[in-house]
Amino acid sequence: MNTGDTAWVLASASLVLLMTPGLAFFYGGMTRAKGVLNMMMMSFGAIALVGVLWVLFGYSATFGKDIGGGLLGNPFEKFGLQGVLDTGDTMPLVGTIPEIAFVGFQAVFAIITVALITGAIADRAKFGAWMLFAAIWVTVVYFPVAHWVFSFTEDADGNPTGGWIGQGLGVIDFAGGTAVHINAGAAALALALILGKRKGFGKDSSHRPHNLPFVMLGAGLLWFGWFGFNAGSALGANGVAAYAWINTLAAPAAAILGWLLVEKLRDGHATSLGAASGAVAGLVAITPACSALTPVWSIVLGLIAGVICALAVGLKYRFGIDDSLDVVGVHLVGGIVGTLFIGFAADPNSPAGGQGLFYGGGLELLGKQTLGAVAVLAYSFVIAFVIGWIINKTMGFRVSEQDEADGIDVTVHAESAYDLGGRNSGSFSPLLEKLPTTSVSKGSTSAEAKVDA
Amino acid sequence: MNTGDTAWVLASASLVLLMTPGLAFFYGGMTRAKGVLNMMMMSFGAIALVGVLWVLFGYSATFGKDIGGGLLGNPFEKFGLQGVLDTGDTMPLVGTIPEIAFVGFQAVFAIITVALITGAIADRAKFGAWMLFAAIWVTVVYFPVAHWVFSFTEDADGNPTGGWIGQGLGVIDFAGGTAVHINAGAAALALALILGKRKGFGKDSSHRPHNLPFVMLGAGLLWFGWFGFNAGSALGANGVAAYAWINTLAAPAAAILGWLLVEKLRDGHATSLGAASGAVAGLVAITPACSALTPVWSIVLGLIAGVICALAVGLKYRFGIDDSLDVVGVHLVGGIVGTLFIGFAADPNSPAGGQGLFYGGGLELLGKQTLGAVAVLAYSFVIAFVIGWIINKTMGFRVSEQDEADGIDVTVHAESAYDLGGRNSGSFSPLLEKLPTTSVSKGSTSAEAKVDA
Amino acid sequence: MNTGDTAWVLASASLVLLMTPGLAFFYGGMTRAKGVLNMMMMSFGAIALVGVLWVLFGYSATFGKDIGGGLLGNPFEKFGLQGVLDTGDTMPLVGTIPEIAFVGFQAVFAIITVALITGAIADRAKFGAWMLFAAIWVTVVYFPVAHWVFSFTEDADGNPTGGWIGQGLGVIDFAGGTAVHINAGAAALALALILGKRKGFGKDSSHRPHNLPFVMLGAGLLWFGWFGFNAGSALGANGVAAYAWINTLAAPAAAILGWLLVEKLRDGHATSLGAASGAVAGLVAITPACSALTPVWSIVLGLIAGVICALAVGLKYRFGIDDSLDVVGVHLVGGIVGTLFIGFAADPNSPAGGQGLFYGGGLELLGKQTLGAVAVLAYSFVIAFVIGWIINKTMGFRVSEQDEADGIDVTVHAESAYDLGGRNSGSFSPLLEKLPTTSVSKGSTSAEAKVDA
Repeated sequence: MNTGDTAWVLASASLVLLMTPGLAFFYGGMTRAKGVLNMMMMSFGAIALVGVLWVLFGYSATFGKDIGGGLLGNPFEKFGLQGVLDTGDTMPLVGTIPEIAFVGFQAVFAIITVALITGAIADRAKFGAWMLFAAIWVTVVYFPVAHWVFSFTEDADGNPTGGWIGQGLGVIDFAGGTAVHINAGAAALALALILGKRKGFGKDSSHRPHNLPFVMLGAGLLWFGWFGFNAGSALGANGVAAYAWINTLAAPAAAILGWLLVEKLRDGHATSLGAASGAVAGLVAITPACSALTPVWSIVLGLIAGVICALAVGLKYRFGIDDSLDVVGVHLVGGIVGTLFIGFAADPNSPAGGQGLFYGGGLELLGKQTLGAVAVLAYSFVIAFVIGWIINKTMGFRVSEQDEADGIDVTVHAESAYDLGGRNSGSFSPLLEKLPTTSVSKGSTSAEAKVDA
Repeated sequence: MNTGDTAWVLASASLVLLMTPGLAFFYGGMTRAKGVLNMMMMSFGAIALVGVLWVLFGYSATFGKDIGGGLLGNPFEKFGLQGVLDTGDTMPLVGTIPEIAFVGFQAVFAIITVALITGAIADRAKFGAWMLFAAIWVTVVYFPVAHWVFSFTEDADGNPTGGWIGQGLGVIDFAGGTAVHINAGAAALALALILGKRKGFGKDSSHRPHNLPFVMLGAGLLWFGWFGFNAGSALGANGVAAYAWINTLAAPAAAILGWLLVEKLRDGHATSLGAASGAVAGLVAITPACSALTPVWSIVLGLIAGVICALAVGLKYRFGIDDSLDVVGVHLVGGIVGTLFIGFAADPNSPAGGQGLFYGGGLELLGKQTLGAVAVLAYSFVIAFVIGWIINKTMGFRVSEQDEADGIDVTVHAESAYDLGGRNSGSFSPLLEKLPTTSVSKGSTSAEAKVDA
Repeated sequence: MNTGDTAWVLASASLVLLMTPGLAFFYGGMTRAKGVLNMMMMSFGAIALVGVLWVLFGYSATFGKDIGGGLLGNPFEKFGLQGVLDTGDTMPLVGTIPEIAFVGFQAVFAIITVALITGAIADRAKFGAWMLFAAIWVTVVYFPVAHWVFSFTEDADGNPTGGWIGQGLGVIDFAGGTAVHINAGAAALALALILGKRKGFGKDSSHRPHNLPFVMLGAGLLWFGWFGFNAGSALGANGVAAYAWINTLAAPAAAILGWLLVEKLRDGHATSLGAASGAVAGLVAITPACSALTPVWSIVLGLIAGVICALAVGLKYRFGIDDSLDVVGVHLVGGIVGTLFIGFAADPNSPAGGQGLFYGGGLELLGKQTLGAVAVLAYSFVIAFVIGWIINKTMGFRVSEQDEADGIDVTVHAESAYDLGGRNSGSFSPLLEKLPTTSVSKGSTSAEAKVDA
């Protein structure tokens, strides 16, 4: 075991945990004021649910010994993390770090991937339905897909027994362009179709962001955490981690410039929402590629991702799909751009060692990257659609029209986000005052509400 | 010295420092808009005051050579950090890290413990009285109690000379269930009794949280920092740290589910305040136990802590004690739950190595844990009550009724938190406009106010 | 290569990146609600622009082999980071870490320095003009000055070939009191003179902070990140880093007390703006000195910096210079105080090893420190003034009076920060509603705006 490598992975795992609250602000700031708490709750719900499932069987299903020809890990082998908890002389390792540290680092990947989906269903999903979807999707989609991409186990003879995409096919995806971003983006598209459009979608301006500084805060925390996400994926404090780190700075920096340029040329204004979105688009695109591209190529990728995603987020209006906070436009599109760009610009001298088209590698790598991207996209979209469809037909996935109009925070969570008091008196949810206090906790502890009554 | 261990402890110390601003948002979001700055100021005041006192004599009083049979460290031995500042070949170490790194890591523990207390006295404490209380309490309560629990010194013959709880009695408290959470919670209870109830407490809904996204932000930052708090307490980047890390994810995740379940069954709604509070309750409970429980038992502890604390926070209304932001219900109760649960479920194969009741260890460990918890609770409560009582009788601890009604931000700090301008015009404190500018800085620099006049 | 040292530098680089979003909140909370997005955009713009330029030629110009007698590094030597990207056996190192990790750590220093300047030009700068200024200033001021202070290269014979201030003259500036804070502060003063005063400056209270919790958040994130800034400058996880760490806690803690004391005695109130500003003033002052002063002397420096900066920020009204958010009063003054204080109190036993006046070193060190401070101040001020003057005379640096009055967020970025909805209905920018949707994106994606039209 190497303490320096362990220190960096523990720090990285902590950074990646922070990304989900960061996402809650990135998304929450973009919703209306009457839906921000629901949006944040879906992220916190993902932390709670996936955190527990990961410890119970998720880690084992993802990184347990392969039992299905590269399709699945054994969910019972390390159930409840049995077999990885020794911290003494016989402590199991993954590379140079304790396996239990690797468990933690991968846990937060599962969490953020699930949380990413929620941007597509702002303002209108039942909280219980979301939690049910999250539990099923992470089990039947994320755990297998992460096994495909991230699992690099071997049998006793040293033959690979891990997932078919990363280890079998040799797709380059350093930190999750396919397993995280394409995966979440495809599921988001499926749910946007299942739940349908919010009332007023594309017709008025009532869905504009209610708190843009929160969006900036979210982008800042995401970027900060993303250094753990990408550079931590080296599973050590070494040159590879540092290489990934600098690309995780360069690509989103360039993507901001790309996105703002599109806005300036098209609309005449560079917006803060564009800067925040551009940063995230660049971070998404560099995620699979951060060990495969030189920093200069990372800048090129960032510029491309910024421009393409800035154009892509408008398509939802053309197609009439209410991907409310642009999960598809940023994560699915950005993930595809980054995954495929590796096929063009992977540098044989980079840590990943791929040989892209521009470096004389022909179409081979590009083909593999395309196959990996399409496989994850298709699998995630289809299964997410089926899960969502069943939930919608049985318990119902969407709140009532009236509840949506009144605001999902007050109707589903019995809270309102702000009560700024004084001259701007009261909460912005008059409804909160009208409901009987016994059934509404008024944004305070329920116990207080009971006393009120 | 080991650089990897040092890297993790330095990172952890930085993470724990961030917890106090995180707490300022967790608490600040729960107050009314006209008291948020005062709440935050009490946290920042704790950083300022305790940061200075720790360097001067706090570290020495806590970790200096024992001078009172396990009751106190020598406050003069390392006064001003003398004797620990060598960074050359003869640099003093604590384990495998520089002692000066250990000084920093422990400094931020002292700071957050003091800041935790402030949740009990929202909206009504004089700032100067709070600062005085903080200086005295940290000196006569925190430093000794931390010596009892965290100090593991030895004399020349290798006999333990450290604190009586951790080293003498052998109570398991990895990261501060007793020294931090029970300690702060008991002091909070004492101050809530001394200061009395806010006007309108339990009678109307005017004390509901003014900014729930801030509460979520605070919970997110606290969780992030808590990885440093718990996993950093291994004082190295190793299997023990990783073991503590995964439990610091699993327990609060389960606690969120437990808390939300109570809310859903009792009130019909799962709230964001509940999710944030549940996370913190789980973090508190796992703090002493993170090196002693398997991750599955940590999930069980988290569920229990979430349920019990969700029920406990309502008791303040029954007893008529204005523990405004639930320091007692979350930190005291959660700290006790976590400390005692070790007596039941400590795994002999865990890093801590205790043998709980469920593992055939009988009642011995449970008895020790109970004794440790009760001792800290009683000592902190009594001394905090005495300090608070004296301050209240002499300089007065509470602001005037009129100042409380007008809002403590404007009356004590001459500021108001928000001025959102435009249509929602002006600040929410009309009072701010009426006061003469010479005596009110209007939330800007005082110099500006003078120019205004 | 040492993994522990690398882990700490990677963590530190991530921490320092977070400082710029932190600064966006520290500054953004201090502006009016109608200028917060513009303020944040200038910080995010700095990340984007400097992130790209650093990779292309900035690193090489700063740390490339000296080509001008200590005045400049060779910008072409490592253009595009060529020569530092090997992560295999022949990986280039800086000390015990990969050079590519050093590239990342220094990148975020360049970014935050540029962003610091923006506090002087709140509410009134054209975004394009700012971006142009940033690109030129970082190239002709920051890169050379950082070379002067931070570059410690040698020729084949081991003779120093690095910058004239740090390596040549032997000025002690551990983490950037001159290269970062005096540098940014002097440029800020120049731009405040070029752009002139905001309408109403010093005459009414309309420029008071619109969101003080954001200021506290910014201060908290800055402090957190500053541990990476200062302790990370040890370029390793060792006693020197820990020494710098504890001083980075002690000095700002004392500075808060100093600042609040001035406020309390002068105005009768301790403010949250004062606490946040005091923390930053202390952090600035300890930046050059954190490896040279004992913790007790750091407390003294913190107190002095808190008092002096609290007094200094009022001078802008006397001189009629609209340094809007006190970049001069905090960063220039604080940087000078910290840099000069080393000349008085540098401890020969400290890691830096200087001998201050109080330790019998006479005036030699103080003279050097003064020379370094004055040189950076003068160079940065003059060049920044020239760049700003030319931009102002050609494309214009300041928005129109009408745009400033209407609010820079809506007029320049076509956004408004908040739309809190409901009873506090609508945005606070009525203008947003009046402008044709085709030319205003309404704070949402531009595509949405187009659909609206």
